[in-house]
Amino acid sequence: MKKLTTAVLDQGKTTDILLADDLKDLANHLGGYGRAVMWVFDTNTAKLFKQLPPAHVVLESGESSKHLSSLERILSTCLDEGLARDGRIIGFGGGVVCDLSAFAASVYMRGCRLTLVPTTLLAMVDAAVGGKTAVDFRGMKNMVGSFYPAGEVLICIDTLRTLSDKEFLNGLAEVIKHALLSQDEELYKFLLVKKNEILSREPKTLATLVELSLEVKKWYIEQDPTETKGIRQMLNLGHTFAHALESSSHFGSWSHGAAVAWGTCRALEAGIAMQVTDKAYAIGATKLFKSYGYDIEHRIGRGDWIEFRDHLLKDKKKADGKVLFVLLEGQGKGVLRPLEMPLIQHLVIAKPIF
Amino acid sequence: MKKLTTAVLDQGKTTDILLADDLKDLANHLGGYGRAVMWVFDTNTAKLFKQLPPAHVVLESGESSKHLSSLERILSTCLDEGLARDGRIIGFGGGVVCDLSAFAASVYMRGCRLTLVPTTLLAMVDAAVGGKTAVDFRGMKNMVGSFYPAGEVLICIDTLRTLSDKEFLNGLAEVIKHALLSQDEELYKFLLVKKNEILSREPKTLATLVELSLEVKKWYIEQDPTETKGIRQMLNLGHTFAHALESSSHFGSWSHGAAVAWGTCRALEAGIAMQVTDKAYAIGATKLFKSYGYDIEHRIGRGDWIEFRDHLLKDKKKADGKVLFVLLEGQGKGVLRPLEMPLIQHLVIAKPIF
Repeated sequence: MKKLTTAVLDQGKTTDILLADDLKDLANHLGGYGRAVMWVFDTNTAKLFKQLPPAHVVLESGESSKHLSSLERILSTCLDEGLARDGRIIGFGGGVVCDLSAFAASVYMRGCRLTLVPTTLLAMVDAAVGGKTAVDFRGMKNMVGSFYPAGEVLICIDTLRTLSDKEFLNGLAEVIKHALLSQDEELYKFLLVKKNEILSREPKTLATLVELSLEVKKWYIEQDPTETKGIRQMLNLGHTFAHALESSSHFGSWSHGAAVAWGTCRALEAGIAMQVTDKAYAIGATKLFKSYGYDIEHRIGRGDWIEFRDHLLKDKKKADGKVLFVLLEGQGKGVLRPLEMPLIQHLVIAKPIF
Repeated sequence: MKKLTTAVLDQGKTTDILLADDLKDLANHLGGYGRAVMWVFDTNTAKLFKQLPPAHVVLESGESSKHLSSLERILSTCLDEGLARDGRIIGFGGGVVCDLSAFAASVYMRGCRLTLVPTTLLAMVDAAVGGKTAVDFRGMKNMVGSFYPAGEVLICIDTLRTLSDKEFLNGLAEVIKHALLSQDEELYKFLLVKKNEILSREPKTLATLVELSLEVKKWYIEQDPTETKGIRQMLNLGHTFAHALESSSHFGSWSHGAAVAWGTCRALEAGIAMQVTDKAYAIGATKLFKSYGYDIEHRIGRGDWIEFRDHLLKDKKKADGKVLFVLLEGQGKGVLRPLEMPLIQHLVIAKPIF
């Protein structure tokens, strides 16, 4: 185990982010916790174990598990296992497992210990770090949740080997988003130069990719741990468009990452229309997404607009009843702006402008 | 409206505690919030209004509402009403309404605004202040919840006029507990001298009683907002015994306050047995509870011991598997100690020692 970094969040709570050499190294570390632990897997990650630890919950993999009833199941098992407030929940899986385990840890006896082992690229660079926990509620993504940083996040690049290409790209979209939000160009350049190594999942390259991406996220969350200062919200670049797309496709055909790639490109176009975003920068960033294979030219059907709009209007980022979007002035410079409905409609329905 | 005090909790979050002159003064203040609010009542407090505000939930009064399903109902209504993250939940009622409204506010969009209007003595001096939110879970009291201080707590002494004697005594037990935990003797002496005025609910006396009691609670919660430093836990004096009594009586015959009075007297006896508590102090404090009419001599039946013990073992205050009890060295001096089961059994089953 090698410590990558420590994120310092609200009330001085810290998240240690550790990199495991391999699965054995990871297992050794986790074995050290002893017995006052409760594990959360999904049907994919449970398969990684010959024998599951005694106290565990296995969730059906996928977004449909991200529901209050799964939270109740985890809490119930914690109680069955006699877990006390000084006990530990270990979430071992992708974003859904991480978000749910962390939500459960935040409310079980008003907060117990929490270790997250993100096993997808998306969870490593996003869900596991930063303390946001959530479940979907009445079809609305991440509508109910809390802020509760994990005490430690254990990253094992080996777990990325068995991901499907779709799932790998799901996470890579957030990495590219982080590249645009970074205060420097290191990650952006790395993505341009190392495309082949990244797509062939060369382990050392992926370790660097994850580390660089986490540094960007860490910068934002440390400055604004509970998203009250208008800084952390910049990480939502592309997400307002993305959530509406995901919700109106009923979490079916669009993965979160693919939707974020699409949404970020819509935000870049919106920025041009609002004279906020430099056009050359927007074109370069759009090309970067395209080079990794994202369907950024997708447009929703005219008949789906009403549903898309209704989902937009339920977004959490609102002020005075208007939905706010993150736009980019340029590299690392996000701004929060309301957009008028006709512009949004044009952006998601009309033909691409470049 | 008169500001009594401001409690400063974690991350610099503050709770303003305001005292209303009367119901009209309270209504004026609440009317100022405009429309982005969602109200939570119970069947008792809903009766105080000729016409309920448009966005509201009315919970069945009593502990049986303190359940995840009520939380879901509140969250669902917030969503129906289009409440955004800058919207406000107003909890108007006793401890159950306050705890549930605050839990909902803490998780709705990961946290929206919160005003609490405690309408019982118990809620005024305890539930509404300090940020603890909770629901019962699988029969276990306050097993699931969060820390989320209200932005403001509005106290209107007029609402105490219609409480039953049982409900009034329910709150008064926490006041007496605060008197024992206070760093000075002002509240203790007030309770000794003003017994008749308190029991006849003389408004000015009650306002002073609530203010003195809140000062004690404030002292503890400000020093240890999320109960991680072993200071705030002192407020649990009597509660380990009390929760087990309430749980094993299935939240039926024992009110929380009556159980706390009983439990505090058991903790005083335990302190004598452990040579922690000064005997003269314990006798005085026990007499104070008795003078206000609490059944502190109750003993559980031998046949109920196993269930009582099982509930004890599920208590949140555990270290290394042992349940910890708050004992008193003397006025304002709490200590946390594990107790052996035979001693506990003796204390709750055997005849009173004084």
